This record gives sequence, C-alpha cells and structure tokens, in this order.
Amino acid sequence: MAEALAGFRPARRTPAEPMPLAGALHRVPAAPVTAPHALPGFARSTVDGYAVRAADTYGVSDGLPGYLQLTGAVLMGPVVIGTEPAITVRPGAAVSMPTGGVLPSGADAVVMIEYTQQVMAGTIEVVRPVAPGEGVVRADEDAAPGAGLVPAGRPLRAQDLAMLAAAGVTTVPVHARPRVTVFSTGDEVVPPEAVTLRPGQLRDASAVALAAMVAEAGGEPVPGGIVPDEPYALEAVLRGALPASDLIVISAGSSVGTRDETAGVVRRLGPPGIWCHGIAIRPGKPTLLAECDGVPVIGLPGNPRSALVVFRLLGVPLVRLVGGCTMPPPEPAVRARLARDLPSAAGRLDVVQVQVTGGVATPLFGLSALLSVLTAADGYVIIPEEATGLDAGTEVEVTIYR
Amino acid sequence: MAEALAGFRPARRTPAEPMPLAGALHRVPAAPVTAPHALPGFARSTVDGYAVRAADTYGVSDGLPGYLQLTGAVLMGPVVIGTEPAITVRPGAAVSMPTGGVLPSGADAVVMIEYTQQVMAGTIEVVRPVAPGEGVVRADEDAAPGAGLVPAGRPLRAQDLAMLAAAGVTTVPVHARPRVTVFSTGDEVVPPEAVTLRPGQLRDASAVALAAMVAEAGGEPVPGGIVPDEPYALEAVLRGALPASDLIVISAGSSVGTRDETAGVVRRLGPPGIWCHGIAIRPGKPTLLAECDGVPVIGLPGNPRSALVVFRLLGVPLVRLVGGCTMPPPEPAVRARLARDLPSAAGRLDVVQVQVTGGVATPLFGLSALLSVLTAADGYVIIPEEATGLDAGTEVEVTIYR
Repeated sequence: MAEALAGFRPARRTPAEPMPLAGALHRVPAAPVTAPHALPGFARSTVDGYAVRAADTYGVSDGLPGYLQLTGAVLMGPVVIGTEPAITVRPGAAVSMPTGGVLPSGADAVVMIEYTQQVMAGTIEVVRPVAPGEGVVRADEDAAPGAGLVPAGRPLRAQDLAMLAAAGVTTVPVHARPRVTVFSTGDEVVPPEAVTLRPGQLRDASAVALAAMVAEAGGEPVPGGIVPDEPYALEAVLRGALPASDLIVISAGSSVGTRDETAGVVRRLGPPGIWCHGIAIRPGKPTLLAECDGVPVIGLPGNPRSALVVFRLLGVPLVRLVGGCTMPPPEPAVRARLARDLPSAAGRLDVVQVQVTGGVATPLFGLSALLSVLTAADGYVIIPEEATGLDAGTEVEVTIYR
Repeated sequence: MAEALAGFRPARRTPAEPMPLAGALHRVPAAPVTAPHALPGFARSTVDGYAVRAADTYGVSDGLPGYLQLTGAVLMGPVVIGTEPAITVRPGAAVSMPTGGVLPSGADAVVMIEYTQQVMAGTIEVVRPVAPGEGVVRADEDAAPGAGLVPAGRPLRAQDLAMLAAAGVTTVPVHARPRVTVFSTGDEVVPPEAVTLRPGQLRDASAVALAAMVAEAGGEPVPGGIVPDEPYALEAVLRGALPASDLIVISAGSSVGTRDETAGVVRRLGPPGIWCHGIAIRPGKPTLLAECDGVPVIGLPGNPRSALVVFRLLGVPLVRLVGGCTMPPPEPAVRARLARDLPSAAGRLDVVQVQVTGGVATPLFGLSALLSVLTAADGYVIIPEEATGLDAGTEVEVTIYR
C-alpha cells in the first residue's frame, strides 16, 4: 500500500485555466501569484487619535504632558485628488485621525486618542510618547511589491481570496479540474432508478459515491455508466473515454474470480499498462492501478464498501495529483482509545470503520459487502502494514468522514 | 462569545426541496430517510464455494471429510425470472457459488472452496463444517425494511449517497441552501476590479472571502455589493435584500466610531432587532448580531481580517443553523505545543493565528488590519474567555484552514 501511494505517480497534470475569484475557492493555483504593488498601498492609522511626528512626543508623561498644535483633520474615506498636499504634519503639530485614515505627509506615528486631551481650541495635550511607526500600518506592511500572495499547488482558502482581491488580482491561473470518468461493471448491476429488482440484481451504489469523492478531491466526475460483463464492451467504452478523461475509475470487475476481465482489457488499452494488480489492503485487495496512453486507470473491488474505502485512500490522492495539488488540505481527525483489540496481519494495511464517542473508538465489524458499516461509521482507523494488530486502549488517530 | 454562540438562535430554517443524489453531497436532509425494502434484498454468498445445508457439514474434518452431491451451479448475475425454483439445495446436496451469487433455496450457508475438493464428477468432499449463515449475507443484513438510512440534519457523506442509491432512493428532501446576502460598506471601499487606487481607497477583500465561507458552510452567497457610508442608502439596500435573504452579512460599518451607522439602520429594519452589539472577542469586538423580520443579520468589523475571523466563528454556525444542519461536520485540527507565551485578558476570547511545523504552533502577530497574517497562517488557536493567557509549551488544539 505504501509502495502504491509513493510509487504510482502518473505524470499527467491538468492544464491551467483562468478562474475569476468568485469561483476559485479550493481551486489549485497553477503558478504562484505575487503582489503587483504594495499593500495596503498607503500608510494608514490603526487607531483613532492624532497623527504626529514621533519625536515631538519623546519624554512626555502624565506629569509632564506635551502640547501640540492641532492643524487639521483627516477624514475617513479616500483622499480627493489634489487635496493630499493640503494636510501635512509639521514639527509641533498634530492632525486628528480616524482608524484606517490615510497618514498625512510629515507624520510618522499616531497617538491614541486615549492618551490625549484637547485642552483648548487648536491645542492638544499628549501624555504618552509614541515611537515612529506606532499606530500606523506601513504602505507595504501587508505585502511588498512582488511578494508571494498564494503559492502554486495549495488549494485556495477563503483568506487567500481576500488577499488576492485586496491586491486587485481578480483572476487566478488554476489547474483545470481533472475529468474523472467513473464506470461500473457487472451484469447484475442496475441503475439506482430501478424500482423493482430481480433476485441477484443490485443497484449501482458505487458510482454516485465515487463521483462525490471525486468532487470533494477537486475533480469533475463524468458518469461513464454501467457496462455489462463483456470484455469487448468494456474495452470499447474505456477506449472511447480515454481522450476526454484525466483519470478513469472502474468499479467491480477487478475481483480475482470468474469475472476478472478488467485486467485483460486494461492491458490492451495502451502502454505502459498495469502498474499493480492486488494491494495488501483490507478491504480492497483486488485493486488495480494502471496507466494507459497517459491516463491513470484505477480498477476498484466489486463490492461498494471496499471500492469506497480504497478510492478514499488511493483514488483521492490521485485526483489531487493529476489536478496539480501538491499541498492537500488536511482531513478532520480525532485521537481516541480503541474499545477493543483489533487483529491484523503483518504486511497488510487494514482500514477499520469506527464510531467515536467520548474519546473512545468502537470498531464496527461486518462483511465487506455491507454498506451499513460505512454509513454507521464516524471515521476510520488505519492499522499499518508493520503492525500485527492494535490492543484495546491504544490511542489511535481516527480520520473523520465529512 | 459563548453566550453569543449559544444564545443567538434565530428560528429561521430554509424549506425542504427535493434533490437528486448526484447533487446531494454535503446537503442536509430535512427528514430522516428509511429503507423502502430490505437490503441487499436477497441472501448472497460472500465467498467462492458451495451452497449447502449447514447441518450436512456438522462434524466433518480433514480426517473425516463429508461428501455432498453437486447438483447445480449458481451463475453470477441476476436470476432469470422463472428459473429460481430450478435450483434448490436438498439435504446432502451442494450447489457451486460465486462470491456475490444468490443463495439458492434450501441452502443456509456457503462452504469456502478452499475447504472442499471435487473428488469425482458430481461429488465434493468437505473438510470443514459451516454454521447456518456462514459465508452468507442475509437479505436484510445491510438494512431491514424501514431502517434509518440517513438522519435529518447531518450533511450527506459519500457513503450515505451509496446507501441511498443501493436502496433505490434517488431523490432526498434537503434543506434549501440558505441565501446569504453579503454587503460591504464604506466610501473608501472599491471593487477588486479597480486597477488604480487613490490614497485611502481599499479594494473589497471581505466580500469574496465571506462568500467562499458561506459556500463552505452550505449556503448560497448572494453578492450585495458595496454600499456608501450613508445610512439611508444602507437602509434601502438592506430593506430590499430582506425578502430574498435567509441571512444578511454586512462587513465594515459596525466599528464603534464616526461611521457606526449600521446599528442605527439595523434597529430601524424590523423587530426584534439587535441582539448584541460588541462581543468579547479579539479580533472582532465591534460585531453586531440582530434579527430583523425573521432574518438574522450579522454586522462584521470593518477590517477584513477581523471580519473573516469573526465570520468563521459566528457566521458559519449561523449559516449551518439556518440551513437545518444540526450535526455539523468536524473541522480539521491538530494538537501542537505553543512556541511562546500568549497573553490574553480574562473574559475575552482571543483568536490567534499560528503556523504549525513538527508539532509546534508558532503564533503570528501583526495588526488586525493585516490580511497577510491570515494567509500565512495554517490555522488558529482559541484562548478561551476564562484564561489569562497560555504558557509556551502548552499543548493546544489548532483548527486548520482548508
């Protein structure tokens, strides 16, 4: 499993496309974005008070106040063009300032109003000294020109969009969403819409859930439909899907049994072909990883629960990789103590579904064919390859489903 | 802050709407959904082997094998109507089975092929006994008729969609996404598209980020635009937005200062009016919470960083509440040790941005006007109201941004 995660690294990456900020949440920048100019772009006050020359306040105190001449007021809002030179703070002078106001020329600090008093018309008393820069945001304090605003490869977060908007960057080059075509195979599989089933028929449970996980991982799911258990039919639809897919997912058909046709079909599809078939993971052993004509292909186990477990562990990172995401966002996780022993075979990674209550993780057991074990679970625990099981009471990390 | 979170609970909930499964990921069911029939609906084999009557295998062993008559084979795939009665397992008989095959009538267990051998045409040898139900999924093992498939109020996860699809439930009643109208106010605020700015002008950084957080919380952001610092203009746009909003967010304008017009406007907007104005949180003190004519209203601080911090803590839960989400998904979080002391005032909740490397959380300081502190952060630490600060080395929980 570790080898599959680290070793199967298809080279395919989706191209860049320009994306307006309003649609850019969680999208992956294809290149770093830098500040076109200084931010905020002008020095501003961070407090309500008086813009001063700091040197004019040195040594003042409650017992020995300083007195400055009030020579003007900066109003909130933009400076009307042509008026900027009008306000200048000369030595011995002060100009009243609102929070966020533009620092007038000459001033290098703002004294908070709390430390001042207007003693007579045109004169204020200052009882605390300020250092240069105090009470002020520098013109380039949020970003210097050319400073990195967002890195490539990390999905954009809400605050990244705020920063880009502040800098006037309204379009970001992002990786196109990987188009992930999802096929289900099996003569017994019918669409979820089927109202009455014959014995032996099952509704396609995997496709809609795999599509959801693709979307969560930043991909664009493309429904491939249900393909009958007929190798040439499967080969034809896969071949047809290759040109418009960045990743192909086939659920069922990869169990090692009478219907194991997927491997043969994938082998014929294009070079370099199958990377591995069978992974030391439970559930999910009969998983297939391949690359055909530059398109990664994942063959998932036949039963929906195994398919979903494997896709979360192997498929989601592949969708992110192809979509240029090099810094995947973290998954929610909690630490909890195991309610009971969990056996496992060394050399095999086990994925155990658990419910978590009050810091205790209770494993849910059940046949790998049961979806109810997954829907009842809050999350899952991984028993690593090297472990031969975990004892009751062991503190484990539970990845929580969202 | 705790009071605001627990006490401000507007009654508004969005109505239910039918949603096809393909669009239902992370949507919030407005009612529980139950299984219309048993799942999987028929008993099936979980192994490759032979369907038998368990009693026929009692006492067999390697030394004392049992012999059963091979009377048929279940093929994979659906049973052709009218053929079911054709295969019946009589006492002393066995029928070969693929994994997933429909258990024939008469049989109550499946012996794994590994514990059998075909000794002559028409006869198999069995060396391990099976109990009734062994190697079999019961017809109602995944869900009994009427069993709960998904609860109301919890956003649908990928596996929930799989379960619903398996049950043939292709449309779910979900709460409509709350329509959240986002306004920015301020004469100095210009759209992000503005290419050159005059000193004192700032591009609207909050609106796009607030919209992103609304979407993350399951809401539908509605751009309200930038409103000048003019009370009657603000009142007019707010009044116009009320009928089509499930929640209204106003950024800026709620700082206690010369421009503090929002509170007055909101007071005139409709009953019951302002719930609180000013919250013991840093950054974000001048936050306003109100309800006007059944629509919750949040007034956020003027600077984008404070606005985003407060909205994440107070706005996101409100969007979820109005959208019927009673079991919000967990946020990613890690435990880390503080790299340095964090001072805080008792009675005030502090939100401190941090970077996390190797289990150490390094606080990022900077004026609350700086967005770069938010974009440089991996997550945040909350210093609760009752604490007067946290010592370096304290283990804290860092909520990680996605």
